[in-house]
Amino acid sequence: MEFDLIHRHFKLPFEGLSRANSRTVVEGIGDDCATFRMSPDHLMYTSTDTLVEGVHFFAEDAPEHIGWKSLACNLSDLAASGAEPLGFMLNLSLPRISESWLSGFSSGLLQLASRFNCPLLGGDTTSAGANSAITISITVFGQAPLAHHGFHRSHACVGDEVWVSGLPGLARLGLLLEYHARNQLAACCDRGDLQTFPVLLSRLSGSLQLEALQALRQPVPQLQWGGRLQGVANACIDLSDGLGGDLSHITQASSLSAVLSVPALKSLWLEKWPDLPTLPDANLLLDSLVRISLQGGDDFQLCWTAPAHSLDAIILHSDQAHCIGHLQHGEGIWLDTPGQSPARWVNQSYDHFRGVES
Amino acid sequence: MEFDLIHRHFKLPFEGLSRANSRTVVEGIGDDCATFRMSPDHLMYTSTDTLVEGVHFFAEDAPEHIGWKSLACNLSDLAASGAEPLGFMLNLSLPRISESWLSGFSSGLLQLASRFNCPLLGGDTTSAGANSAITISITVFGQAPLAHHGFHRSHACVGDEVWVSGLPGLARLGLLLEYHARNQLAACCDRGDLQTFPVLLSRLSGSLQLEALQALRQPVPQLQWGGRLQGVANACIDLSDGLGGDLSHITQASSLSAVLSVPALKSLWLEKWPDLPTLPDANLLLDSLVRISLQGGDDFQLCWTAPAHSLDAIILHSDQAHCIGHLQHGEGIWLDTPGQSPARWVNQSYDHFRGVES
Repeated sequence: MEFDLIHRHFKLPFEGLSRANSRTVVEGIGDDCATFRMSPDHLMYTSTDTLVEGVHFFAEDAPEHIGWKSLACNLSDLAASGAEPLGFMLNLSLPRISESWLSGFSSGLLQLASRFNCPLLGGDTTSAGANSAITISITVFGQAPLAHHGFHRSHACVGDEVWVSGLPGLARLGLLLEYHARNQLAACCDRGDLQTFPVLLSRLSGSLQLEALQALRQPVPQLQWGGRLQGVANACIDLSDGLGGDLSHITQASSLSAVLSVPALKSLWLEKWPDLPTLPDANLLLDSLVRISLQGGDDFQLCWTAPAHSLDAIILHSDQAHCIGHLQHGEGIWLDTPGQSPARWVNQSYDHFRGVES
Repeated sequence: MEFDLIHRHFKLPFEGLSRANSRTVVEGIGDDCATFRMSPDHLMYTSTDTLVEGVHFFAEDAPEHIGWKSLACNLSDLAASGAEPLGFMLNLSLPRISESWLSGFSSGLLQLASRFNCPLLGGDTTSAGANSAITISITVFGQAPLAHHGFHRSHACVGDEVWVSGLPGLARLGLLLEYHARNQLAACCDRGDLQTFPVLLSRLSGSLQLEALQALRQPVPQLQWGGRLQGVANACIDLSDGLGGDLSHITQASSLSAVLSVPALKSLWLEKWPDLPTLPDANLLLDSLVRISLQGGDDFQLCWTAPAHSLDAIILHSDQAHCIGHLQHGEGIWLDTPGQSPARWVNQSYDHFRGVES
C-alpha cells in the first residue's frame, strides 16, 4: 500500500499514543523492527487473532466496528491471562484501497487502543487480489509480574466456583438480530430454535436490542480483572466461542466437570430484562436465552474458576461478575435446575461462522 | 480449523524446539496467551510480514518453500536490527484444508525455525471462503542488549561505506526464471528489458540457475551479522524491495546520497559467473545484471553503512560481504562508472508483485 496512506491512517493518528507510552515504546512504526521495553521482573504475554471478511464480520459492517473488534478480541486474550497491554502489531490485507474504509477502521482501532493505552508498534499492509477477502491479523503484547504465574486452563480445582463477567450470550443475541434483519436466521442457529428465536427477537425491548448490538460490535475487553484475580483465580478464559464451549476447555484441561445453575444463568438475563416474567411464554423465552448464553460466541467476557468464597471480598456488591456454578469430579458441562436431574449440555457447532482458535 | 489438524501440523512438530528453548518459552501453543522470558537488560524487537497467494507467492509453489519464506522475511527484519530471535506467532487463513499442503508448509517452517532456534509460540488458523487467497502473517520476536541501541535508517553518516551481504539481485534472477518459464516475463520486468533478459536467462549456467531459484525460494536470513555489526554499523536494512529502493530508505532518512561503484556491483556477479566475460555481449549482460541487483526484491540480504575501514578487522578475507560504495552529501542513488559522469538511478516499481511494507 502507498506509503502516504499508511502514514495518514496509521502512523499519524497513533503517534500521540506512542508518545504517551514512551517508557514502553522505544521505536514505533517505521524501521525494520519496532522495539519496546518491559518492566523488570515481568514476563512477556502475546496472543494473535485473525479476522476474515465473510467469516468474522460482514463486508458491509462499519469499518469503525471492525477496527475496534480486531483489537478487542486480542486484548481479551491478555485479560484472560491477567496481563496488561504493552502494544500491538497490525497486518492488513485489502482487496481494494478505500480511503473512507481505512479512515473508519483506523479510528475504531485508535478509540479502543487509547482506552487501554495500547500503542500500535508496526505492521504490514498488502494489496491483495480484487476478489480476496479483507484479512486482519493483530498480535498483541502484554506483561504481568513473574510472581503472577498466569491462569491456566488446566489449573482449575474441584470445588472451585465458576464465575463470569458481564452477560455471556449478549453478543450472540446481537448476531441473531443482525441475521434476523437479513432474513438469514437459519444460517446462525439450530433448526429447533428457528421457531422460538424469531418470537424472542421480536419481543426484545429497544434498549436490550441496542445493548446486544453494542456487545457484538464493540465488545469491551475485561482488562480490569487481571490485577484483582491474580493470586485468587485458578483458571481463566475469555468467552470467544461461547460459555459452554470455552468452559469445556477448562474442564477438559483440568479433567473435571462443571455444574451450572440454570436459575443463576436466568437471573443474568432478568437483570437486563426485568419485565420478561410478565410476557407470555416467559419460561420458553428464558430457556432460549440460557441456550444463547451457553452457545454464545464473541462475548469477550471472562469466565474464571476460584476457590469458594475467595472472591467475596473482591466482588462484594459488584454487579459486574456473578457466580454461576461450581466444579466437581467427572466430565462435561451439566445444567442444574432445582427439582430436576442435571442435564448434560451438548455443544452445537457454528464453525461456518467462526474459525476455531489454535 | 480442526483442533487435531493444528495439533498434528503445528503443536507436535514444534514441541521439540520449544523444549530446546525452555529458558525463553514459559508457555507455548495452547492457552489464551503464550508467555516468554527475555534476558535482563535487553530490549524486545518485533516485526511482522504478510504473504498473500498471488501477490507474494504462486499458488502452485511448494508449500515447504512458502513456509520457509514466511518466516525468513520476518527473521530478516530481526537481522537488519541486530537482534537475535526468541520466537514467533503464526496467522494462517486458508480457503481449503489440504493435509499435504499443511504438512509441507509446517515442515518448511520448522526447518528454518530450527536452524535459528526460533520456537513457534502460538497463532490463529482460520478457514476463509473458498475463493479467498491463502494469507500468512508471521510476527517475530527478538532481543538485543540495551547497549546495542539498534541500527536506524536515519543514523547513516557522510563518508560511510555501503556494504552488502551476499549477492543482491540473485532472488530477482530466480523470479525472472520462474516468470520466463511461464512465458510471463512481461509481468515482471520493464519493457526495455524484454529484449535483453531472455538472452541473459538462456545463457545462465545450470548452477547459477539453481542458486538463483534457491535464493528466491529459501532465502537465508543473515542473522550472523547482528553481533558483528553492533557498535560498528550506523544504519542497516534488509533487502526486501531491492538494493536501490531499500538503500533509498537509508539515504532519504539520513538526508544523504549514495554513490555505488558499478565495477564493484559487476564483480559480485563475476564471482558467481566467472565465464561471463568470454560470452558474446558480455557487457550488455553485465549491465542487465547490475539493473537486476538494483531493482531486486526478496533477497533478504543485508545492506549496511559503516565508517570507512571500521569493518576491515571483521570482514577481512570474508567473501560474504562486500563494500559497494559510499555516502556523501546530497540526495539520490548514483551509479559511478570510471571514466563516465555518475548517473542517477531511477526506481522501477513492481508493486503489482509485492505489497509495500508499512
